[in-house]
Amino acid sequence: MHVSLKRTSEKKGLPPGSLVHVGARKTEKVMITLIDYDETKYEERQIERIEECLPCDITSGVRWINVDGLHDVDVIEKLGNQFNLHPLTLEDILHTGQRPKMEDLESHLFVVVMAFSRNGTGDRIESEQISIVFGANWLISFQEKEGDTFGMIRDRIRTAKGRIRRMGADYLAYSLIDSVVDNYFGILEWYGERIEDIEEALAINPRQDSLQAIHHLKKEIILLRKSVWPMREVIGGMDRSESPLVSDSVSVYLRDLYDHTIQVMDSVETYQNLLSALLDLYLSSVNNKMNEVMKVLTVFASIFIPLTFLVGVYGMNFEYMPELTWRWGYPALWVFMISVIVGMIIYFKRKKWW
Amino acid sequence: MHVSLKRTSEKKGLPPGSLVHVGARKTEKVMITLIDYDETKYEERQIERIEECLPCDITSGVRWINVDGLHDVDVIEKLGNQFNLHPLTLEDILHTGQRPKMEDLESHLFVVVMAFSRNGTGDRIESEQISIVFGANWLISFQEKEGDTFGMIRDRIRTAKGRIRRMGADYLAYSLIDSVVDNYFGILEWYGERIEDIEEALAINPRQDSLQAIHHLKKEIILLRKSVWPMREVIGGMDRSESPLVSDSVSVYLRDLYDHTIQVMDSVETYQNLLSALLDLYLSSVNNKMNEVMKVLTVFASIFIPLTFLVGVYGMNFEYMPELTWRWGYPALWVFMISVIVGMIIYFKRKKWW
Amino acid sequence: MHVSLKRTSEKKGLPPGSLVHVGARKTEKVMITLIDYDETKYEERQIERIEECLPCDITSGVRWINVDGLHDVDVIEKLGNQFNLHPLTLEDILHTGQRPKMEDLESHLFVVVMAFSRNGTGDRIESEQISIVFGANWLISFQEKEGDTFGMIRDRIRTAKGRIRRMGADYLAYSLIDSVVDNYFGILEWYGERIEDIEEALAINPRQDSLQAIHHLKKEIILLRKSVWPMREVIGGMDRSESPLVSDSVSVYLRDLYDHTIQVMDSVETYQNLLSALLDLYLSSVNNKMNEVMKVLTVFASIFIPLTFLVGVYGMNFEYMPELTWRWGYPALWVFMISVIVGMIIYFKRKKWW
Amino acid sequence: MHVSLKRTSEKKGLPPGSLVHVGARKTEKVMITLIDYDETKYEERQIERIEECLPCDITSGVRWINVDGLHDVDVIEKLGNQFNLHPLTLEDILHTGQRPKMEDLESHLFVVVMAFSRNGTGDRIESEQISIVFGANWLISFQEKEGDTFGMIRDRIRTAKGRIRRMGADYLAYSLIDSVVDNYFGILEWYGERIEDIEEALAINPRQDSLQAIHHLKKEIILLRKSVWPMREVIGGMDRSESPLVSDSVSVYLRDLYDHTIQVMDSVETYQNLLSALLDLYLSSVNNKMNEVMKVLTVFASIFIPLTFLVGVYGMNFEYMPELTWRWGYPALWVFMISVIVGMIIYFKRKKWW
Amino acid sequence: MHVSLKRTSEKKGLPPGSLVHVGARKTEKVMITLIDYDETKYEERQIERIEECLPCDITSGVRWINVDGLHDVDVIEKLGNQFNLHPLTLEDILHTGQRPKMEDLESHLFVVVMAFSRNGTGDRIESEQISIVFGANWLISFQEKEGDTFGMIRDRIRTAKGRIRRMGADYLAYSLIDSVVDNYFGILEWYGERIEDIEEALAINPRQDSLQAIHHLKKEIILLRKSVWPMREVIGGMDRSESPLVSDSVSVYLRDLYDHTIQVMDSVETYQNLLSALLDLYLSSVNNKMNEVMKVLTVFASIFIPLTFLVGVYGMNFEYMPELTWRWGYPALWVFMISVIVGMIIYFKRKKWW
Repeated sequence: MHVSLKRTSEKKGLPPGSLVHVGARKTEKVMITLIDYDETKYEERQIERIEECLPCDITSGVRWINVDGLHDVDVIEKLGNQFNLHPLTLEDILHTGQRPKMEDLESHLFVVVMAFSRNGTGDRIESEQISIVFGANWLISFQEKEGDTFGMIRDRIRTAKGRIRRMGADYLAYSLIDSVVDNYFGILEWYGERIEDIEEALAINPRQDSLQAIHHLKKEIILLRKSVWPMREVIGGMDRSESPLVSDSVSVYLRDLYDHTIQVMDSVETYQNLLSALLDLYLSSVNNKMNEVMKVLTVFASIFIPLTFLVGVYGMNFEYMPELTWRWGYPALWVFMISVIVGMIIYFKRKKWW
Repeated sequence: MHVSLKRTSEKKGLPPGSLVHVGARKTEKVMITLIDYDETKYEERQIERIEECLPCDITSGVRWINVDGLHDVDVIEKLGNQFNLHPLTLEDILHTGQRPKMEDLESHLFVVVMAFSRNGTGDRIESEQISIVFGANWLISFQEKEGDTFGMIRDRIRTAKGRIRRMGADYLAYSLIDSVVDNYFGILEWYGERIEDIEEALAINPRQDSLQAIHHLKKEIILLRKSVWPMREVIGGMDRSESPLVSDSVSVYLRDLYDHTIQVMDSVETYQNLLSALLDLYLSSVNNKMNEVMKVLTVFASIFIPLTFLVGVYGMNFEYMPELTWRWGYPALWVFMISVIVGMIIYFKRKKWW
Repeated sequence: MHVSLKRTSEKKGLPPGSLVHVGARKTEKVMITLIDYDETKYEERQIERIEECLPCDITSGVRWINVDGLHDVDVIEKLGNQFNLHPLTLEDILHTGQRPKMEDLESHLFVVVMAFSRNGTGDRIESEQISIVFGANWLISFQEKEGDTFGMIRDRIRTAKGRIRRMGADYLAYSLIDSVVDNYFGILEWYGERIEDIEEALAINPRQDSLQAIHHLKKEIILLRKSVWPMREVIGGMDRSESPLVSDSVSVYLRDLYDHTIQVMDSVETYQNLLSALLDLYLSSVNNKMNEVMKVLTVFASIFIPLTFLVGVYGMNFEYMPELTWRWGYPALWVFMISVIVGMIIYFKRKKWW
Repeated sequence: MHVSLKRTSEKKGLPPGSLVHVGARKTEKVMITLIDYDETKYEERQIERIEECLPCDITSGVRWINVDGLHDVDVIEKLGNQFNLHPLTLEDILHTGQRPKMEDLESHLFVVVMAFSRNGTGDRIESEQISIVFGANWLISFQEKEGDTFGMIRDRIRTAKGRIRRMGADYLAYSLIDSVVDNYFGILEWYGERIEDIEEALAINPRQDSLQAIHHLKKEIILLRKSVWPMREVIGGMDRSESPLVSDSVSVYLRDLYDHTIQVMDSVETYQNLLSALLDLYLSSVNNKMNEVMKVLTVFASIFIPLTFLVGVYGMNFEYMPELTWRWGYPALWVFMISVIVGMIIYFKRKKWW
Repeated sequence: MHVSLKRTSEKKGLPPGSLVHVGARKTEKVMITLIDYDETKYEERQIERIEECLPCDITSGVRWINVDGLHDVDVIEKLGNQFNLHPLTLEDILHTGQRPKMEDLESHLFVVVMAFSRNGTGDRIESEQISIVFGANWLISFQEKEGDTFGMIRDRIRTAKGRIRRMGADYLAYSLIDSVVDNYFGILEWYGERIEDIEEALAINPRQDSLQAIHHLKKEIILLRKSVWPMREVIGGMDRSESPLVSDSVSVYLRDLYDHTIQVMDSVETYQNLLSALLDLYLSSVNNKMNEVMKVLTVFASIFIPLTFLVGVYGMNFEYMPELTWRWGYPALWVFMISVIVGMIIYFKRKKWW
């Protein structure tokens, strides 16, 4: 996950409800897809003029408008006017980097969630804000960039797989959020693999880059947690909301989704604990290693420094050093020195330093 | 406990309620056991065709269907159809690795719990998802593999021990969950023994493998906690649920079971704290040991390095070194050096380094 | 406190409500004491046959039956039958090592608390499960071993001190629990003294056995906390319970007891924080000490290793070494070496290493 | 942020409601600005005599009185009398360093928030207490110093941008608090940048001043958190308050603001976690570095100390040392010593110390 | 703050409600001051016989009885009888070291708070339990020792400053507690200054006594926290209590006091975090310093140990050492050795060890 800690505050001072796109422009062109479906029909088309989306011409079934790309404020504003969205809703849609949230605005419900996906090379995880607004028989979803996040749901509607064609806009909203939450499991799996990789690497040899890797994962999971944590409120809020827009038949699905979210949060917390445990392991291993290094040094130094002193003694040039003239002086010294060495080694062995 | 951090996300994108078995195939053949009992009769048989389990032919007493092995989706689906289970329930049964949960689905209650057992060699702990669905006079339990988890309950029914034959399906459900929770105590005991082993080992000598053992236990208990934590909600939820399927007479048993669950959670938390304390002890011991090593090095080096310098001085070949020709130069130097050694030792003794 | 982490799971698989004594047998013989009292009379006797305790023959006042020793399951079972206790209650009484709990069983209330006492030599703390069951005008208390835990209450009843003779079984229950909680303060005081002892020892010299002592206390307080924590629920539950068995006049006493329990918990938490602070202090002291040792080593080595090199130079046997023949070579070298030593000492002094 | 831990307690002992200015005097002269506006008119003037602010002469629209500078107690008191403010309200306005709070006083609502701004040179963050009191059609804001905190809101009113001219005093209050909260994002961004700077610096080389920088940020964020944390209650309290002074149409804005506050708090917590992770990284890096240094020392010492001993042996002056006269003694010794060196290097390479 | 961890358990075993003074005797003589006041009159006198305090002779206004010194149990008991106080209340008054608490006893409210004051020399903080009991028109306050804690309130009543003369006993109780809480700010300021002192000392040089100072403050704040934490419940409880003894007009003052208490708790928590940060800083600095020391040692040793070996080689006495007779051997060796030294220094400089 590449998340900068910098949040653009360029909007500072504008009146609330001002429409300014905040965030990186991630796609070339705003693309609007309109899907009309009910139990019997399915119609999908790309539209150019926003006026084609008028909610009044929905006769039966559900109309799903998907907007890829947020940088064209004008499009968003027109959509907002046609569907009578609250200015603050539009502001939140445009201002990416929102905290996930759910708002019941009487005529429609507004949900912001954060989707994660691996980037092209697969070694980084990117985040994208997805905003969903839905009313009785329409739903508008806003994505920061083109992508296949919702492709499988489109397929499911097209092929009439599952019950989606028989259900309303609330079930569609559930399906979209469910696909986002489902993606979390893939991301978590990816993190789990990386944690296990580090653990295996640590078992062999604690290295500086293991430390960097632990720190990196730790930071990413802190930031991931920040995005995932509010999801519980979002989905719990949808389930508990007394809005007539969320029908009872969808409630059991939302509760299931809620359980999944809790599971994601459990895993995030578990990963945080595992990473803390890994850091402890790393630090202890480094400490252990240093201890081992110190023991080697101490053993060498403690054995040879005294002996070096001793041979230094007999290297002195005093005129009167009787030992120097003894016949067995030199061999005796060797015997003495070897016994010192052996004695020290036994001593250190007993102390388990060797 | 051998728990991989990897959760299969192979189901990604399928519509909710799709039946796909997720998890390792732990048994060869799906085995279905059907037990009919009431206060007077007891009948047990293995069945081949799922149609034999029709709920309508239960006249009196309780029908318990136990399914070992989840890989045959077809069997699960047929059972689901016959007992009118919700597709999400079937999905959760098949998708192992669920968070323990309890769901009140009007016509039946659905409970998922996680059982733990020591493996054959007894040095590893394995987890298994157990799903229980029960209605007014029937109960279906799903296990991932054949095993004697519920063997003792079968015996109890057969021999009419305790009150189980006089009670309904809710008491049977309670008994099954109770036997799972009872098993936790054995697992906890096993962990307790391992913690005490490590503690004793640490008291003697802190070694690298103690560290690995602490880390290993820590990780396992983090993962165990994740499975045990939701049990409180599950059992508390069953007790508080206003479903007519849970009779008042079972309520007192559920409260007792709830107390046991809290006790398990207390122990898990206590073990986490004890392991943290052990890690602190380990680290401090290593630090202490390093300190001791350092002191030995410092004492040796501080005594002999200056003396080596001194003998080096009198090993120089200057022509004019008056000390070299003194009659008592050599013995005087020895006297001086020995008094230095003695002085240093006294100094270090006073500093408690020796 | 000598607490083993091992919990006997020998009961595994028995039907709930099976009566098996789990725990160490701490007394030779089960001793049953029966006390009948009201405002005017007081009668105490040891009984042999359990049938003498029949609740029906209580005409006025309160009957208190105290059972010391739990290993004779038969006695407990007969008592249970006579007073119509729930099988799960009897099971919890026999299965020591329970989490403290309170259960309202309509005709009687059941309370389990954990008492602590110093052992004979006073250097260890032992725990004992105390179970109390009481109805309208009777109370049965179960202790694991003979002891004077309740001696003072017996005295108070005998001598009619305080209001105990005028009150009912609920006040007696309160008095028993109160005496258990009062004991906690003595235990806490004992821990407080040991913490202060360690702190004083640390101020003088951080030693390995201080570390062991800190770890030992830490572990004991983790386990103590596990027993004390649920007391809040127990006593709060008794106060809040709408059972007619707990009269309003006892409520104010229970609230006072509740405050004491909170105070005990506060102290336990405070001790945990203090022990953490002590461990931090210990580790920092060890680190500091190592730093000091390192400085001594570094100062010695940095001064004498270069000088040893220097004298080594003039100990070489090259034929052409002009310095060796200089008249003032040797004294000049000494002057140089002494100025190096002095310079180094000044340098290290400035660095505050000396 | 320059926050002293010292809180002036000079007010100690005065009766509650005594008006004494507590805090630094941050501006020369108290400046009072009076703005009257409604949908059609806008009037702004500096006033000298406080009597000009009488609430009774507000006929239509909203009157906003902004007071810059708090040291003139007399002005505050007169304002308080005219608008009938509670003495405790006035005391809190004057006593800077308050915890942010919201109080519903029937005839008016009182809100205290804490604003942060970068100082002139941009390297320090300063805090300022902002108090807002508002009634049905009037609002008084108190700032510690002149500044442009509310300049943009004045502009918005003047130019009738957004809906502010059409709304009441409650919307104005919301706008003021919103501008304060908006500022937090800038401050957080600034902290985020500094955290990333430190992280980059650490990746290259862990230095003492990185440690100081981490500590400094940590301290500032602890103090920032103290000011930001209560904001949730403040804004949540305004939204939930049943005061008729907060109209329903403002409620949706307050909820939006509430979400922003939560987002700020999330970020503060995230930054705390990131700083902890950075400190861990720093410590581990220092440890690693020390380990590396130790290895170099150990390798050098372990190789050359034994060899120095060896050459010392042949520097001895014993008369009978046969090796000294051997023809190939010297080259043989070299061969031996070089093979020792090579052997040691291979040994250390294998241990990955080199 | 000098707080012993020892809590006297001398009361153990006495029936609840027994009146025994527990705690140090801090004053010579019990002093009782009686103040009668209403809007028009003020009367203050020292009384000798407790019978003069009879509540029945209060005709109008408020009677405030202040008792300094708790060791005369008789006085307390008589007061208790006259004002009809509950035995448990009297017990709590006498048993100092209580947890702050509030109890609504129908006819009167009972509040225990903990006051802190700097001792004579100003370098230690002492705690004192203050108990307040008040009814409709009377209030009794109990202090452990004579002191001016409430002097300023007496002055305020005497001089009719503020609204105290117009209000009832509940406002007086509020004023007393308020003066205690106000004192906390002074204490916190004192701690804040000491924390800043330590921080400055650490910036210059981390020393062992900084560590002791941090530990000392940490311990004191842990104990302070224990006393301050329950204050929230106490004051919140008074505000929420439905007792007719607390009038609505006092409620706004209690809420203000509640805010102050929260502010105190925030500060205590902030100080705990700051001390943790300081300890981290200290430990890191010590580590850094050790690292620096190690580098110096390593640089010296790594440079000179190999060179000492080299000069040792040419100090050997082999007969056949051709280098010794070379004309330029000695200068060549110097050139080689100096280039080794320079090379090593460059190498270490590059590694940033120098």
